[in-house]
Amino acid sequence: MAPLNVAQKLIRSHLVAGQPMPGREVGLRVDQTLTQDATGTMVMLELEALGLDQVRTEVSVQYVDHNLLQADERNMADHLFLRSACRRFGLWYSKPGNGVSHPTHMQRFGVPGKLLIGSDSHTCAAGSLGMLAIGVGGLDVAMAMAGEPLYLTMPEIWGVRLTGELPPWISAKDVILEMLRRHGVDGGVHRIVEYHGPGLAGLAAMDRHVIANMGAELGATTTVFPADDRVREFLAAEDRVADFAELTADDGAGYDLTDEVDLSSLVPLIARPGSPGDVVPVAQVAGTPVHQVVVGSSANPGLRDFAMVAAVLAGRQAHPQVSLDVNPSSRQILADLTGMGATLSLIQSGARLHQTGCLGCIGMGQAPAVGHNSLRTMPRNFPGRSGTVDDRVWLCSPETAAAAALTGEITDPRQVGVACPTLSLPSRSAVNRAMLEPPRPAGEAVRVQLDKAPSIGTLPDLDPMPDDLEVAVAITVGDDLSTDEILQAGAEALPYRSNIAKLAEFTFARVDSEYVTRVRDQGAHAIVAGRNYGQGSSREHAVLAPRSLGLRLVLARSYARIHWQNLINFGVLPLEYDGRTPEVGDRLIVRDVAQALHAGTDITVHNATRDTILHARHRLSARQINILLAGGRIPALAARR
Amino acid sequence: MAPLNVAQKLIRSHLVAGQPMPGREVGLRVDQTLTQDATGTMVMLELEALGLDQVRTEVSVQYVDHNLLQADERNMADHLFLRSACRRFGLWYSKPGNGVSHPTHMQRFGVPGKLLIGSDSHTCAAGSLGMLAIGVGGLDVAMAMAGEPLYLTMPEIWGVRLTGELPPWISAKDVILEMLRRHGVDGGVHRIVEYHGPGLAGLAAMDRHVIANMGAELGATTTVFPADDRVREFLAAEDRVADFAELTADDGAGYDLTDEVDLSSLVPLIARPGSPGDVVPVAQVAGTPVHQVVVGSSANPGLRDFAMVAAVLAGRQAHPQVSLDVNPSSRQILADLTGMGATLSLIQSGARLHQTGCLGCIGMGQAPAVGHNSLRTMPRNFPGRSGTVDDRVWLCSPETAAAAALTGEITDPRQVGVACPTLSLPSRSAVNRAMLEPPRPAGEAVRVQLDKAPSIGTLPDLDPMPDDLEVAVAITVGDDLSTDEILQAGAEALPYRSNIAKLAEFTFARVDSEYVTRVRDQGAHAIVAGRNYGQGSSREHAVLAPRSLGLRLVLARSYARIHWQNLINFGVLPLEYDGRTPEVGDRLIVRDVAQALHAGTDITVHNATRDTILHARHRLSARQINILLAGGRIPALAARR
Repeated sequence: MAPLNVAQKLIRSHLVAGQPMPGREVGLRVDQTLTQDATGTMVMLELEALGLDQVRTEVSVQYVDHNLLQADERNMADHLFLRSACRRFGLWYSKPGNGVSHPTHMQRFGVPGKLLIGSDSHTCAAGSLGMLAIGVGGLDVAMAMAGEPLYLTMPEIWGVRLTGELPPWISAKDVILEMLRRHGVDGGVHRIVEYHGPGLAGLAAMDRHVIANMGAELGATTTVFPADDRVREFLAAEDRVADFAELTADDGAGYDLTDEVDLSSLVPLIARPGSPGDVVPVAQVAGTPVHQVVVGSSANPGLRDFAMVAAVLAGRQAHPQVSLDVNPSSRQILADLTGMGATLSLIQSGARLHQTGCLGCIGMGQAPAVGHNSLRTMPRNFPGRSGTVDDRVWLCSPETAAAAALTGEITDPRQVGVACPTLSLPSRSAVNRAMLEPPRPAGEAVRVQLDKAPSIGTLPDLDPMPDDLEVAVAITVGDDLSTDEILQAGAEALPYRSNIAKLAEFTFARVDSEYVTRVRDQGAHAIVAGRNYGQGSSREHAVLAPRSLGLRLVLARSYARIHWQNLINFGVLPLEYDGRTPEVGDRLIVRDVAQALHAGTDITVHNATRDTILHARHRLSARQINILLAGGRIPALAARR
Repeated sequence: MAPLNVAQKLIRSHLVAGQPMPGREVGLRVDQTLTQDATGTMVMLELEALGLDQVRTEVSVQYVDHNLLQADERNMADHLFLRSACRRFGLWYSKPGNGVSHPTHMQRFGVPGKLLIGSDSHTCAAGSLGMLAIGVGGLDVAMAMAGEPLYLTMPEIWGVRLTGELPPWISAKDVILEMLRRHGVDGGVHRIVEYHGPGLAGLAAMDRHVIANMGAELGATTTVFPADDRVREFLAAEDRVADFAELTADDGAGYDLTDEVDLSSLVPLIARPGSPGDVVPVAQVAGTPVHQVVVGSSANPGLRDFAMVAAVLAGRQAHPQVSLDVNPSSRQILADLTGMGATLSLIQSGARLHQTGCLGCIGMGQAPAVGHNSLRTMPRNFPGRSGTVDDRVWLCSPETAAAAALTGEITDPRQVGVACPTLSLPSRSAVNRAMLEPPRPAGEAVRVQLDKAPSIGTLPDLDPMPDDLEVAVAITVGDDLSTDEILQAGAEALPYRSNIAKLAEFTFARVDSEYVTRVRDQGAHAIVAGRNYGQGSSREHAVLAPRSLGLRLVLARSYARIHWQNLINFGVLPLEYDGRTPEVGDRLIVRDVAQALHAGTDITVHNATRDTILHARHRLSARQINILLAGGRIPALAARR
């Protein structure tokens, strides 16, 4: 048998349908799921709609990490609903304050060799442990909990060989920023990134998490690392060494594509405002004034990331102009940080120590002032994601963030005039499972009532695809439009995540404030987009909301993976097209949709307004065509019964 | 000379106008001011309107503790504006994260014998140090910064003798809750409460802060304690023993009224949802399920308050049903708490450790679910103040809060089955002034430009009182209506505190959603209210907002002190009336207002709709009448120039 790489091994050990050849649909058995509260309320409503009794996965965990501000009664109502749903359906419940899903899952549940999916695009971070960890839409998670496989277009495997060692002041964040500098925000689309090579030895599991996490920003299906001694060391520190299983590439294993990064050659990097892919050396923008530095999120969640900032700042003061915001990523990491004295250093240096959670990363608070630079260790800086229209958010490593906190301007940490700290981290973590409620025994669970406050909505009705699709173009948007722009996160909209009817009012609010009014007239409508449409988060709300307003067709140059899948899951036809962009108001017609889709990948779209023909393609499998025609995966399942 | 009590000494040492006889107006020299961000932006706009060059007080400090969530760009824009105003006008700037104004001011600036006023109703907390500390409207603070005296109706002095010692599990919060149980939310109106007697020896300065703070809930003008050895001890711990000056009552000093509390007889008390005055023994409501426990705010800000909760929880877990939210009151207290290991205990017990600030106390986050009980160590539970309409917020001591966190239900801490902890607190505080920016030198200050983002508004124009007042009744409300109900705090409205035009849309929003629409038609209008109208916070926005919509007259059975003063400051006539309540829409007329006010305290109001006469009274001094006729204090000052 041919030598296999780690990604191939993970896929083959979970394959239940299809051939693992790039571009072909495969079905994979799912071992674990995670959901977070911003997407999880909808998942729980889907479980209810599916009539699920008990989850069929090995482990399913519901985290509460997004909607933590509780500006009114809806957040806590969501928490109560999620807790009741966990007790009803057999999930673990991770209380508000326990931590951000990705590091917490890695610490408490990650197991090499397992397949994890999650209704959060950064689920891929668990690839750091040798898991196949994939961010998907909520409905895919719900179906997996119900025992269905995950269906996926088999990606290419992209081997990235790491050599050398990271110099002082350079850390894992600079590795993934280097990848983004080279390849941009769609460089990883339809690919799994697999890191290998001698450079791995210098990267702890939590460093690998940093790199795997922001694989999402490359557009990658996921990122994998081998499960090696550094993973064993991590699991031992987490009191779970028994969960370790070695998983490495076979000698001589190959990759569909290759790249190489010499760690010793890296310099501090930073992504400029607007896109995680707009990366330059820190030195190139040094001197830019900074008003806010935010440390935290799943992109730099590890103890070392916070401890590094604390060590750089220890005995010093944050610059008077800077608001230094620190968001611990988990209760456990905060406990370790506090136990080692680093929390005290941060407090004494002027940090605003915030509750454990995602917070500013998804615009739940910490919004910067207009035009004032905010440096963040977070994964994304899509326009407006911070909660501020016309924001200026930069992405960087903890080292670069700490340097700016001291100087009040963007500063190459190598130039900050402080010796690079040597960190001494505890070899055992402050393991504490008390904020993780285990699933109820099945006999008890069936008697649990869902706790649905009036603010918890229901799923919209999903009608089947009509025989002939006739729609008006409601909006045209450019390249790389993120789900943050389709349907914003943030303090204003996030509290409505469990109420699609209300949430829909925010659709495209920051891109085209007339969209909602327009489609309330138009009804059935289309969106026309550029390349990499729907990049960013996994939120299926970015489909459900416009779908509830009549969306049936998207024409894009290309798609981000999760959003494309979400469109199909809820009965919206995603086509790729070339040629001239239709205009808002144009009427588009696809005759006999079922026949057209089954006949082949080419689809003819008639622009009735201009009497022109538009050539488009679809990438749907026969299984997906049937879902689409039924109006989505839930009605398709209902029809099968 | 007759022996004097502490309050009398403080007043006499600051008297610049009037006779200190109850009911007479006195003018007092102001030594110190504090402002916080929710009221301070308006104060800074007032300083700008007054054309102030440099503040003339000994110490003026601008704190940022209210608007900290930063749900969008406006909060940080306010912070930048406030910082620039501090640099321009010569104030200290306390950065976001440094702490809640009251404990921070006490720790860093409090000096026995000084007179402090603040645009926050809980400014009275500094009475714990033997200061005369009075919460007032923002304009009164602005005028004091400009060198004007504070004018005040001389209150009665209410001597409360404390005897005995607090039993285990009973703390200072239970003392003030006992006062509220006895006397209700208007029991202290027109009074200064002065605590004295042998029981004082057992109360540290920060315990006295707890009692003085919630004197605001009694409606008291302020609360005073002597500056004795416990105050010296406090200042020594704060590295400021040189600021100590003994201030005690003369032997044989008397009081206008008296009361006595035997500390040894107290039991754990709790205020039921809706009013700080609805106090019952905890034992009477034990067993009530609890979903949230919030520890923090200026009502229980001391290190011992947090350390007590930590000690009760140490090695134990918060009940799974409970969200335990901990809001450290200052950076310094959090540093001390962390240094002594108590922060780690809280984290390990499942606390959500939030940033330093007011937060849930003014509805900036932490809103509970509808109908779910929230126990808080905070000072207020007016309906909806938590951010949740139909909230159920209870007020209690840290001990009672900790007990509920453990059991998930209201629990008498004496019954919780834990030995009452003996606390060992550090004798020196972790003093750190780095987040306090000192005033700029005057020469530099004049060159500072105010940093006014577009979200920073301007003061509304204030037109003079017309010769004949003709108004329509726009709303009638009942007893004890708080400023939270006139103009809500909370995450939705607070970000507009620097923009009256926008903020005005929230006026009475939770009481009568039609008010704003109605007065946009009516223009000049009146409010008719019950007893203790405008209790609660000092926010002058609760006058400015309706005034900008045309408010000119309030008829109430009685008023809370600060709100009454704010009405006059902005040219709204506050009358007290008996007899039948007019109805919404009734047209009320006061002919020749100037002549009527100067002629005496009785005012005849003609109800033109019903052709009846309403007998009313005013309590305005000649000085205040002139302010009112000019349209408020700012136009009055402009007219004087």
